[in-house]
Amino acid sequence: MTDERGLGLTSGVLPQGLPGTMKVNARGHLEIGGVDTVKLAKRYKTPLYVFDEALIRQRCREYRTAFEKNYPKFSIAYAGKAFMTMAMVRIVEEEGLYLDVVSGGELYTALKAQFPPERIFFNGNNKSPDEIEMALRSGVGRIIVDSFDELDLIESMAGDLKDEKGNARRVPILLRVTPGVEAHTHHYIQTGREDSKFGFSIGAGSAMAAVMRVLASDRFDLKGIHCHIGSQLFDFEPFAITVKKMLDFRREVYRSTGYILHEVNFGGGLAAKYTEHDNPPSVGEFIQALTSKVVDVCRSTDMPLPHIAVEPGRSIIAEAGTTLYTVGTVKHIPGVRTYIAVDGGMTDNPRYALYQADYRALVANKATVPAEVHYAVAGKCCESGDMLIMDAVLPPVKPGDILAVLTTGAYCYSMASNYNRIPRPAAILVNGGVSEVIVERETYDDLVRKDRIPARLLAKKSVVLSYH
Amino acid sequence: MTDERGLGLTSGVLPQGLPGTMKVNARGHLEIGGVDTVKLAKRYKTPLYVFDEALIRQRCREYRTAFEKNYPKFSIAYAGKAFMTMAMVRIVEEEGLYLDVVSGGELYTALKAQFPPERIFFNGNNKSPDEIEMALRSGVGRIIVDSFDELDLIESMAGDLKDEKGNARRVPILLRVTPGVEAHTHHYIQTGREDSKFGFSIGAGSAMAAVMRVLASDRFDLKGIHCHIGSQLFDFEPFAITVKKMLDFRREVYRSTGYILHEVNFGGGLAAKYTEHDNPPSVGEFIQALTSKVVDVCRSTDMPLPHIAVEPGRSIIAEAGTTLYTVGTVKHIPGVRTYIAVDGGMTDNPRYALYQADYRALVANKATVPAEVHYAVAGKCCESGDMLIMDAVLPPVKPGDILAVLTTGAYCYSMASNYNRIPRPAAILVNGGVSEVIVERETYDDLVRKDRIPARLLAKKSVVLSYH
Repeated sequence: MTDERGLGLTSGVLPQGLPGTMKVNARGHLEIGGVDTVKLAKRYKTPLYVFDEALIRQRCREYRTAFEKNYPKFSIAYAGKAFMTMAMVRIVEEEGLYLDVVSGGELYTALKAQFPPERIFFNGNNKSPDEIEMALRSGVGRIIVDSFDELDLIESMAGDLKDEKGNARRVPILLRVTPGVEAHTHHYIQTGREDSKFGFSIGAGSAMAAVMRVLASDRFDLKGIHCHIGSQLFDFEPFAITVKKMLDFRREVYRSTGYILHEVNFGGGLAAKYTEHDNPPSVGEFIQALTSKVVDVCRSTDMPLPHIAVEPGRSIIAEAGTTLYTVGTVKHIPGVRTYIAVDGGMTDNPRYALYQADYRALVANKATVPAEVHYAVAGKCCESGDMLIMDAVLPPVKPGDILAVLTTGAYCYSMASNYNRIPRPAAILVNGGVSEVIVERETYDDLVRKDRIPARLLAKKSVVLSYH
Repeated sequence: MTDERGLGLTSGVLPQGLPGTMKVNARGHLEIGGVDTVKLAKRYKTPLYVFDEALIRQRCREYRTAFEKNYPKFSIAYAGKAFMTMAMVRIVEEEGLYLDVVSGGELYTALKAQFPPERIFFNGNNKSPDEIEMALRSGVGRIIVDSFDELDLIESMAGDLKDEKGNARRVPILLRVTPGVEAHTHHYIQTGREDSKFGFSIGAGSAMAAVMRVLASDRFDLKGIHCHIGSQLFDFEPFAITVKKMLDFRREVYRSTGYILHEVNFGGGLAAKYTEHDNPPSVGEFIQALTSKVVDVCRSTDMPLPHIAVEPGRSIIAEAGTTLYTVGTVKHIPGVRTYIAVDGGMTDNPRYALYQADYRALVANKATVPAEVHYAVAGKCCESGDMLIMDAVLPPVKPGDILAVLTTGAYCYSMASNYNRIPRPAAILVNGGVSEVIVERETYDDLVRKDRIPARLLAKKSVVLSYH
């Protein structure tokens, strides 16, 4: 699958290897979900997040199919932090996935969209008492506990919980552990010194201490362990080491206590394909490798197979998202480069500013014109770091052209800000020739909705400086 | 002034050199504007942005006083992008400053708060037609034009503008130029290759071409030129070079055309004091140096003194802001470090994630307890990069303690996001023992306010995976 979707854009070549339902239509316009993106830009204005519903569902199903082929017991929890709106929650629900939430706000969104609480995993390194209470009251499927302080907090609050028969209800938890593998894009490190704000360290002994602490309490139902080693990962090797470390710890717990940790949650991390330079394994390849490594280790250590959970976010939603912008200015600096500025930027996509992330772009209204000119794509914020792409190869661009930046589904809307008091864009879902709003565009009035002016500040007279 | 405010915190030493009205009260609590911050945290909850009104006003007055002492013709425009709410706009207005806005949203906020449009400067590298229209209709004092495309746009839209007598009104503009000086904290570069998304290059000739273009049109009232060389600058040297380059260009324009550019706007850039390692010049020192350099260059080149404008943001608001957090967890990793996690993070202050910015913190409820323990202060987001301070020296910290992170007035609230669906904090103004809300805290309902679920997505039945 990776090959047939390879984004092989090079100078002078027309767009190919477009993700999902994206194609170029008879008018030479970029089309997603059977809808002309130039028309979308006119109808909904820009910037605009466009989500390819068919591709979202396809990716959810790739995860399910891959597990069904390879492994008996599993759950796939979509990581809401990548992109979560009420409509997205509904799609995830319909696809039969679980949902990984990381805050009261994400939990609220999920519940408001009628997502079944028992299919919700609640992650986070510092859940507040209010968030714990919300999780306990709504009956989320798993709380992934991150610290001893959190264990104390849950224990102190779980006293009132009753099941239908009036018995004290145990809280179903996983313990988040740090296996000592830290993986980044293209490289990873193994370390005995697990330096992370997340979880209980296996190496330093706090993971085992946490297991003991939990098993000694009558408030917890210890379902298993959880880890997350990184994001946008291309290689399976750090995962292989992680599987071994997690299952070794599981066996150690069994040997020390006789208790079998039923579930092992490996978190997320599978990379998305942002540009033609990215060649991540497919979902199928990744899950096949993961599950066979689990089977191998369990066999060789004579342990029963665990229930496996994963928490994909980016690999489900990134490629399904495209941001449409209108070009406002073209600025050629002789001997340097040519900048084009669009009507959004780090406010709707802070990933270049945060991580110098690479993106690929097309001119939606010139999708059949050969891409031969190098441009730096800038945003409209008053900040030099507000760039989207440092070197985009595009057809000749003019003000008014519609620029489509691909693979913006993950960590763009979810990280968007109102910096420079720029309203956040609308998001729409496209499918089978139809477009539907899933997030309305913010208005200027939205920006001042929470502003308050103390009365005394309205009453005074101003002293105006002279102006020449 | 810099010395008496020096933030000389070292291990084991009690807080000293606190900014503005900040002090430690008889209860051993941190106090700002005569209000106990521990009480503020209880009353308004955390995270909470606290703004010291007296310090904001003091800084505005330092700018005015420094100019009044040193130079005849000036305007000081507060750069709203650092922190702008309607209440802040009112304070700026009362202090007689001008206002630098960079978007339709900022202009809307200013107008909504009854800021006089003639005292507004409209900056931005890619103003949309809607924004230009808003600026023309409201009659902003200056549009700072950034590109030839923007000149075309304004010219095409300014045709309808009439003054009271029915004559076509000329649009008062400055031209943003790039002087070929790029300054960063602690270093700067001079280059003939002005590689920036902003402005007209002096070196490449486009600045002179823009002047010619503007003077040939009957739509523009060319008031002068504008530049901005960087942010959080400590040294005056790059400014001195900039003054020379700007005034040389002004003389070149005079020699070529006979036209005298009346105003020269040097933008912003003066550093704020974030930690004890920062020793920026005081406002007075900076303005004195700037104005005397302008006087020197004008004298030696036999040119009349220009009207000077500056656009300070950070140096007015950064130190006046403090963020209060509640500590949720303390996690000691033997041989590595101890993490404390607070109830906010990169969502309310993305500056560590974006720039690895340094901050100083105090424990508000233990302000007289010697600071002797090293902590890494983490946020609550599900992201490893969500840190606030990598090495904070604090009294021993427990869950429930109130952490005050200092100097968060600039680029924190203005850059805040709802990442992880975390509601944005409230902001309050404190002064003379009174606290007033200037931004209300977001609720969970606010987070889903713009979400829409297409009806078909509510109707379907879900296929639930089995769960063990």
